Amino acid sequence: MKRSRLSEALPAGLIVAVDRNSPTPLYRQLYHAYRDAITERRLRAGERLPSTRGLADELGISRLPVIDAFEQLLAEGYFEARVGVGTFVARALPGEMPAQRRAASAATGERGGKRVLARRPEALLGRGPEPWLAGRGAFRLSQPAIEHFPFRVWSTLLARQARSPKASLLHYGDPLGYLPFREAVAAYLRAARAVRCEADQVMVVSGSQQALEIAARVLLDPGSSVWVEDPGYGGARDALTMAGARLVPVPVDEDGLDVAAGIARSPRARAVHVTPSHQYPLGATLSASRRMRLLDWARASGAWILEDDYDSEYRYQSQPVAALQGLDRDARVVYIGTLSKILFPGLRVGYLVIPRDLVARFAAVRDAMDIFPPTLPQAALADFLADGHFARHLRRTRQIYRERRGVLVEALRRELGGTVEVLGDQAGMHLVAALPDGTHDRRLAERAAGAGLWAMPLSTCYLGDPRPGLVLGYGGTGVDEIRDGVRRLRRVIEED
Amino acid sequence: MKRSRLSEALPAGLIVAVDRNSPTPLYRQLYHAYRDAITERRLRAGERLPSTRGLADELGISRLPVIDAFEQLLAEGYFEARVGVGTFVARALPGEMPAQRRAASAATGERGGKRVLARRPEALLGRGPEPWLAGRGAFRLSQPAIEHFPFRVWSTLLARQARSPKASLLHYGDPLGYLPFREAVAAYLRAARAVRCEADQVMVVSGSQQALEIAARVLLDPGSSVWVEDPGYGGARDALTMAGARLVPVPVDEDGLDVAAGIARSPRARAVHVTPSHQYPLGATLSASRRMRLLDWARASGAWILEDDYDSEYRYQSQPVAALQGLDRDARVVYIGTLSKILFPGLRVGYLVIPRDLVARFAAVRDAMDIFPPTLPQAALADFLADGHFARHLRRTRQIYRERRGVLVEALRRELGGTVEVLGDQAGMHLVAALPDGTHDRRLAERAAGAGLWAMPLSTCYLGDPRPGLVLGYGGTGVDEIRDGVRRLRRVIEED
Repeated sequence: MKRSRLSEALPAGLIVAVDRNSPTPLYRQLYHAYRDAITERRLRAGERLPSTRGLADELGISRLPVIDAFEQLLAEGYFEARVGVGTFVARALPGEMPAQRRAASAATGERGGKRVLARRPEALLGRGPEPWLAGRGAFRLSQPAIEHFPFRVWSTLLARQARSPKASLLHYGDPLGYLPFREAVAAYLRAARAVRCEADQVMVVSGSQQALEIAARVLLDPGSSVWVEDPGYGGARDALTMAGARLVPVPVDEDGLDVAAGIARSPRARAVHVTPSHQYPLGATLSASRRMRLLDWARASGAWILEDDYDSEYRYQSQPVAALQGLDRDARVVYIGTLSKILFPGLRVGYLVIPRDLVARFAAVRDAMDIFPPTLPQAALADFLADGHFARHLRRTRQIYRERRGVLVEALRRELGGTVEVLGDQAGMHLVAALPDGTHDRRLAERAAGAGLWAMPLSTCYLGDPRPGLVLGYGGTGVDEIRDGVRRLRRVIEED
Repeated sequence: MKRSRLSEALPAGLIVAVDRNSPTPLYRQLYHAYRDAITERRLRAGERLPSTRGLADELGISRLPVIDAFEQLLAEGYFEARVGVGTFVARALPGEMPAQRRAASAATGERGGKRVLARRPEALLGRGPEPWLAGRGAFRLSQPAIEHFPFRVWSTLLARQARSPKASLLHYGDPLGYLPFREAVAAYLRAARAVRCEADQVMVVSGSQQALEIAARVLLDPGSSVWVEDPGYGGARDALTMAGARLVPVPVDEDGLDVAAGIARSPRARAVHVTPSHQYPLGATLSASRRMRLLDWARASGAWILEDDYDSEYRYQSQPVAALQGLDRDARVVYIGTLSKILFPGLRVGYLVIPRDLVARFAAVRDAMDIFPPTLPQAALADFLADGHFARHLRRTRQIYRERRGVLVEALRRELGGTVEVLGDQAGMHLVAALPDGTHDRRLAERAAGAGLWAMPLSTCYLGDPRPGLVLGYGGTGVDEIRDGVRRLRRVIEED
């Protein structure tokens, strides 16, 4: 019985893979067909292959793609040629596939072996989908008034920097960031936030989350205790958890973090995360007395203070309160700020102010994490600050948020005055509408989401015993939407 | 004896701080003088303050700035007013400053207490300054031909996206990145690298360093063993070290990572970091046999493969070798790529391709690290790929690097043929000029730096017994500079 050279050498199933109507070139189809047959052990080490001429004839195609495929397979070591004899599956290749620990999943048809993963991220998982995040309804949090951002200016500044950039903007750069931008940030923080700093202490990061991430890795060992405000900011907890920290919830009242309670619970904590300007989410300002006690404790115990100066730019009833960092005489405060809320979150630019003796260490850790921040946006931002656009935008948005806040507070009093208590409306871009004890704020928030509102339940911010309420953002919600939103909220609450 | 009201109430030293010629407004000078006096305990809780009128008279200034300063100090809680009595330093403030653990440093006048820091970053420190990095001499590493990048196009695309962006580009976004860009990356990787992926598995990161950082945190626990190539890439080691991994050096030969040696040394390692396309720094391509053995081992042992597909786009003697990821049938490979070397490093854009069952976990870890990547550059990059600029730039630079590589290899043969052996010139943007055993390559590199060259000593890439040599980049060095550089290098070697 006559057999073709091809069928002598090659399992017939492989040939089916060649499809002249496919957009994939023939040589690649052949290359993949052979490679897959070998890696899946349908062709085994040492087995003979057809000649390129024979295979081309058999397939009814030109010999060229066959030669290309064979050359690639030879070059990559799947095939080997023996002079005067022919081409073979390389003898060096491994034989049978090893047995797996676990049977392959029939569902995916892919995975078989065990899948061991890091334990720490477990804490980040298993949070149910949060229905209030589903839409972009009224009262969405952490959303600035992007409709007032000067995008034409921004576009022009970016384009100017990108058109004929200096080489230093394009190559690997300083892990601290682009110096002219850091100088502009230092000047701004000195003037506006009474931060004591020079540009050599400023590190440009992608936002407060990365700032915390870097600070945690420089300052904390796995198992280090860290005070966190309760209620507090989940993002900070996540970063600290990923660093292996043990979180110590410290209660918050109308004067901010209860320092005495922190000392009572964990006097030897390695660090504290605190939002002194506008406590997240309750909105208190850390009192002068607490500021001094916190610094005293840190000085005496050797603890680090992570000052998250979130929302400090917007304050409506008095001058902005100066940063804690400016009071620190022991270089214990790592100051964290972000432009995400002042400009727009998609920009991804924030900054750290680092105690001078720790700068080299922060730089080394940053280098190991993501080397350095993108440079062209920093150059454009340096121009944005230098040309006065930043100060102008800050003034404009302060006025806008003041108005939106006023409308929200007024509407809440009018529509829901008997039910909710307004907390933390002196500053920032959100406030808390505290609800009567016993209210199921999560269910309420879900029902509000159904009515097109983004009202975050206050209870989700607690580690300990929660107080019910709704956290309502007004930065990204216009006044008409605010009035309408409060009316809807009233209906939702009345029906609860 | 008559005493002014002021001197009754206030230590005289404070008044000196007011300077009418300073650009700092008077109210801020007063505010800071009082606040500092209080936080430094020169003024103590309960002490009486002068009246605003009395103080203004005494200082010979208008009363207005005094009132402003007092109001701020009252608002922040440093002062308290007792009706009908006067203004006092708030009684709630803490008393004496606590004793410190260690005497304050006389040199800085600042720091006193103990400064406990994380232990892991110690491994990143204490590396001396590397003299070959001082200049931007010929043969600088990891530097593409930025003079050929189409900055006018890039500027136009960026400006177009920034001028009137969609709201979805500005708000908080997907931790995986901007979907249209991820779709473009997935299509590119499928076509050019034979990666098996869809956009839902692609995560946009700032480069291979952040990719490794995220992967390490998802896959590794403190103490997990990880194979690393020896010699290998220091940046990968740093990221793994920061994740608490125990590094297992595995030797490399002309077929790349010696998989059998790795299995012999650490058969139960949790993961391996490998550069299969162009081993860093020696330049070998991982052979087909080793690829299959590596996948077999990972499948059998449950290990993860971090495929760093560094430099894979540039290959000069054959078709690019397909990615390891495409051979993987057990979803064990995390694929890492970057645009830093193809476009420019200051862009900070790279990508991960994640096994589908791990996507949610990677997203959660990324969210805790830096939330999401900047969006406008991703939108501009999506356009850059869609409009064919990326493919065009890749073709152009491939030709440029092919030429530069040819000139470098030829010059090394001509000038230093008897001394150096060229390794790893089949692909990428650098090659290794291996030197005779016993050569002190670090000293040579220092002397080369003195001659204006950036020649990285090969020995710095080893954890174990090093081979001497110089790693020479040609991506960012033009042909005339290459010829001149090799002549200088010859003189440095001859004088050694």
